Amino acid sequence: MADKKVDLFSMDLPADVKKLNYNQCDDLCRQIRTLLIKTVSKNGGHLASNLGTVELTVALHRVFDSPEDKIVWDVGHQAYTHKILTGRRDSFSTLRKKDGISGFCRPDESKHDAFISGHSSNSISAALGIAYAYKLKGDPHHAIAVLGDGAMSGGLSFEGLNNAGKSDTNIIVILNYNEMSISRNVGSMAKYLATLRTKDSYKKTKTAVQRVLDATPVVGQPVKQVMKSSKNAFKNMLLHSTMFDELGFEFIGPLDGHNIEELEAGLRAAKAVNKPVFVHVNTVKGKGYAPAEANPGEFHGVGSFEISTGNPDVVSADSFSTVMGKELCRLARADKRICAVTAAMKYGTGLQYFAKAFPDRFFDVGIAEEHAVTFCGGLAAAGMIPVFAVYSTFLQRSYDQLIHDLAIGGLHAVICVDRAGIVGSDGETHQGIFDISFLTAVPNVTIYSPSDYQELRLCLKKAVFEEKGIAVVRYPRGKDVSSCGLDCVKTTCFHSKNGGNTLLMAYGRLYNNVCKAANILKKKGIVCDTMKLVKIFPLTDNIADIVKGYDKVLFFEEAYADGSISEKMSAMCGNVEAFNIKGLVPHGDPDTLLDELGLSAEKIAQTTEERI
Amino acid sequence: MADKKVDLFSMDLPADVKKLNYNQCDDLCRQIRTLLIKTVSKNGGHLASNLGTVELTVALHRVFDSPEDKIVWDVGHQAYTHKILTGRRDSFSTLRKKDGISGFCRPDESKHDAFISGHSSNSISAALGIAYAYKLKGDPHHAIAVLGDGAMSGGLSFEGLNNAGKSDTNIIVILNYNEMSISRNVGSMAKYLATLRTKDSYKKTKTAVQRVLDATPVVGQPVKQVMKSSKNAFKNMLLHSTMFDELGFEFIGPLDGHNIEELEAGLRAAKAVNKPVFVHVNTVKGKGYAPAEANPGEFHGVGSFEISTGNPDVVSADSFSTVMGKELCRLARADKRICAVTAAMKYGTGLQYFAKAFPDRFFDVGIAEEHAVTFCGGLAAAGMIPVFAVYSTFLQRSYDQLIHDLAIGGLHAVICVDRAGIVGSDGETHQGIFDISFLTAVPNVTIYSPSDYQELRLCLKKAVFEEKGIAVVRYPRGKDVSSCGLDCVKTTCFHSKNGGNTLLMAYGRLYNNVCKAANILKKKGIVCDTMKLVKIFPLTDNIADIVKGYDKVLFFEEAYADGSISEKMSAMCGNVEAFNIKGLVPHGDPDTLLDELGLSAEKIAQTTEERI
Repeated sequence: MADKKVDLFSMDLPADVKKLNYNQCDDLCRQIRTLLIKTVSKNGGHLASNLGTVELTVALHRVFDSPEDKIVWDVGHQAYTHKILTGRRDSFSTLRKKDGISGFCRPDESKHDAFISGHSSNSISAALGIAYAYKLKGDPHHAIAVLGDGAMSGGLSFEGLNNAGKSDTNIIVILNYNEMSISRNVGSMAKYLATLRTKDSYKKTKTAVQRVLDATPVVGQPVKQVMKSSKNAFKNMLLHSTMFDELGFEFIGPLDGHNIEELEAGLRAAKAVNKPVFVHVNTVKGKGYAPAEANPGEFHGVGSFEISTGNPDVVSADSFSTVMGKELCRLARADKRICAVTAAMKYGTGLQYFAKAFPDRFFDVGIAEEHAVTFCGGLAAAGMIPVFAVYSTFLQRSYDQLIHDLAIGGLHAVICVDRAGIVGSDGETHQGIFDISFLTAVPNVTIYSPSDYQELRLCLKKAVFEEKGIAVVRYPRGKDVSSCGLDCVKTTCFHSKNGGNTLLMAYGRLYNNVCKAANILKKKGIVCDTMKLVKIFPLTDNIADIVKGYDKVLFFEEAYADGSISEKMSAMCGNVEAFNIKGLVPHGDPDTLLDELGLSAEKIAQTTEERI
Repeated sequence: MADKKVDLFSMDLPADVKKLNYNQCDDLCRQIRTLLIKTVSKNGGHLASNLGTVELTVALHRVFDSPEDKIVWDVGHQAYTHKILTGRRDSFSTLRKKDGISGFCRPDESKHDAFISGHSSNSISAALGIAYAYKLKGDPHHAIAVLGDGAMSGGLSFEGLNNAGKSDTNIIVILNYNEMSISRNVGSMAKYLATLRTKDSYKKTKTAVQRVLDATPVVGQPVKQVMKSSKNAFKNMLLHSTMFDELGFEFIGPLDGHNIEELEAGLRAAKAVNKPVFVHVNTVKGKGYAPAEANPGEFHGVGSFEISTGNPDVVSADSFSTVMGKELCRLARADKRICAVTAAMKYGTGLQYFAKAFPDRFFDVGIAEEHAVTFCGGLAAAGMIPVFAVYSTFLQRSYDQLIHDLAIGGLHAVICVDRAGIVGSDGETHQGIFDISFLTAVPNVTIYSPSDYQELRLCLKKAVFEEKGIAVVRYPRGKDVSSCGLDCVKTTCFHSKNGGNTLLMAYGRLYNNVCKAANILKKKGIVCDTMKLVKIFPLTDNIADIVKGYDKVLFFEEAYADGSISEKMSAMCGNVEAFNIKGLVPHGDPDTLLDELGLSAEKIAQTTEERI
């Protein structure tokens, strides 16, 4: 293909990327960036991280043979270029749309997606499993983990490194170092990695690599590129070896993550060494799109935006997250014991206000949800009132810490579970549908599920000051769409009696749909009573008594079936039929998904009509 | 007290340990060791780890003021000496006995137990929470985490280090390095720590420490001890700094963990530095008791034994664990895809046979349950059949990995859940009562609960070869005590029809109690049918149909109530009453505990009689 004009849309991918010269590679990267910006500006998604990995992805596909070589992205929201190069170029416009391609890697979407990758820090462990399987089978291909510096703060990454470094496999771990996890990562590992980034002298190829390469003429040439800034032996002896050397890896880097030639040389060296290798690659988040380079944080996960300016289509206003964050500030002003904790989601959870107002009492622990909960335990043991704000799906990581470090010790901590229920475009790895199941299986937990902003404020206050043990307040992603009026704002439950023999139950935002369904049914002459739970767990006898008074009770719930509140209600009262979520939920618009799950107002009305 | 004869049992503890000279300290340590050996030989418990920490504990209580200074033990089974020195000397003979003192640290047992400590790797995070709380309150006291090298392989420890190293607190992390976690820890961190152990040149006090100490005359003297083998500045410059320096800690060590004078000097230096400090202490597991020094692994957790020889009172025979381990070997001989994974519990889970027979396919990942599951995902993604054998209580750590890395990817892995149900003397942090709740809240899980050895073999085979997705086989600690006969060995369910209108249901070992209860009732003229579930989840319609045919169904279950199978059965069938576990279960003899929970044969019979 030498000297031919490159056209992303007419290439045979991924095979053709191997045939390009470096100028053509640069041209290809430009075209990929244009497609990324165009698509994300329309569909929303992750932009800055993907703009940073364009060259790295192209270099990976030049050096390795996917799908035989397995590239495990951590997390998949930096893998858009990988998707474009591996069969999803033409469907890329459907990114994150219902029935379109996922914003993360999914093995059932493509054989090139080696492993599921929605939650951070799993890539080294997964790649190590693949590497050992290959070794046992005598397959010489590679397993390659690619992770950002944010993912390095997760304990699972360390467990993976600890096992990979001593393994007799050819695993390759690539650190995509872009100086930024989702929030500013302030862990000491981040600081340490920053020192590696700037120490030119680490750009060395060590003896083992050199030996292999001297005996490998084809590879020898590009590796000279890597070695060109190596210091002399004497100087190297004086330098610290890296932490990754200590953990047993051959260390290569840092490489310029936007220079295909250098990347390719480094990766070929990594491929040639028959032992665990750690490759440090420096990239710039948002590379090639000025608004994203200037504000990579804002372009981490975005809605749609205007390409020429980078301005978002809609200015983001209040949400359950910001209301929580502001209310917590109000409470913390009056009580110095209140501390706030986030695992790298300061903005996402609305804690930016707290961080600004009370920097001494604000803790961003990085992507480290286990630590976050145990750390809350320590704060509580010494008399503070810790509030951990976290997305439902990520709290799954803290299950043991909730039981062992909080519940058994009888400590009081507040968990604000954000993004509870269906979250939408991020798909099945991010739906917040399991927190009810696993939180009710922790002793001494109380759960509130406010359905509007005012209830959220009241529940938060009760959770902080009145409850003991683990007090959970859970709320959905996005805005309050409640139309039920102030008279039904409660912190226990709200029972609307209209003289019906049928009761429709729900909690959280789904109560709005139940009310709308009751109105639809009313127009058809069917009268139903409704009940909203606000304190949803533990269930109390007086609620059971009310429920038992009805002929028929339908409980609609935006949560996984097993362990759900509706299941518990059915076990308590024989007349309750539960409508909840039976399996995994793919990506798509939340309203559409709720409708498909039978939880829209229309479907609730329809189901009710069928049952009575 | 100088020159007075030391008598452990007449001292005012912990205050008096500060008044002893070093000779008296050594005498005290001898008396403590005698008490440890005497008590553990009778009651069982953890011996080797506690014999290793005698001097360290005495030194800690000489330098720090508990309970104002908070010592967080990781895990608590190395804290027996701490218990003896802090108010539990006279009750130490009740160790691990029902209503006696716990084998782990419990804040509700003593104000000197700073944090709960049954599961490994939580100490740094908890101590950091306490350290920050102290800082916010202006309290100058210290939080001190003491952890073994085994606990260092857990990701939570790394998350804690990553946050503690960069903190502006005075947290002290003490590594009790004894060259051995429960199984041989083969991670690269363990190798790295071994290099620190032997490098005398690390025994240095760095500039920051020195500066503080020069200005602190009282402390200055003992610190000379620490510095005596420091190398000169030039040599130090040539040496690597430790990984812990890189993570932001002041590093002190290695110290001789059986030399009180040296330990005290090191700890005083750590106390004087107003920043995060990492202290490396070398100890010998089993120190001072020849049989335990020779075989620390055997004396990690033991039953009762004869002091003069170290021989256990009862030779351990077959158990559910060993039967699983041997059967897995049989299956693996015929199928090369089968791999076995343990998280530092090779012997405990019965995988020692597999490790010996198939070393290439055996993986001990250290205390790293998250990694274990994700690693299984990698093996499965590349065509292997991974079998992870793990204690129920420790699998709690893998909840997110089960959902994200196995279930969402639709991967097939087998989880052998050992120590399911009540485990006994280790107490509430170790009871295996939550696995039903959290495993049923993972999509695509099948759970078998064999009640005897033969069922275990059949279920394991089905789980490995016939099931898809996550196939769980769960079984209790200890021996098969089934007396139900071979004709009821099943992999689905067993229904014993005697013409009764009442059905008694159970699964696993509890079915034995149900059968015995039915016999007790029969003698009283009360006829009950019984049903044993073996494939306990998902519940099938045909079971529901059988159950619905009875007037009354009583389901007895050795699992936490919320999310239990009996709760699900109640939700499915209105005539089922569930008898399960409503809260945390303290330590004690399993039969006694089951009786108190209403799950002994006698109590089941009694409950049944009351209900009909």
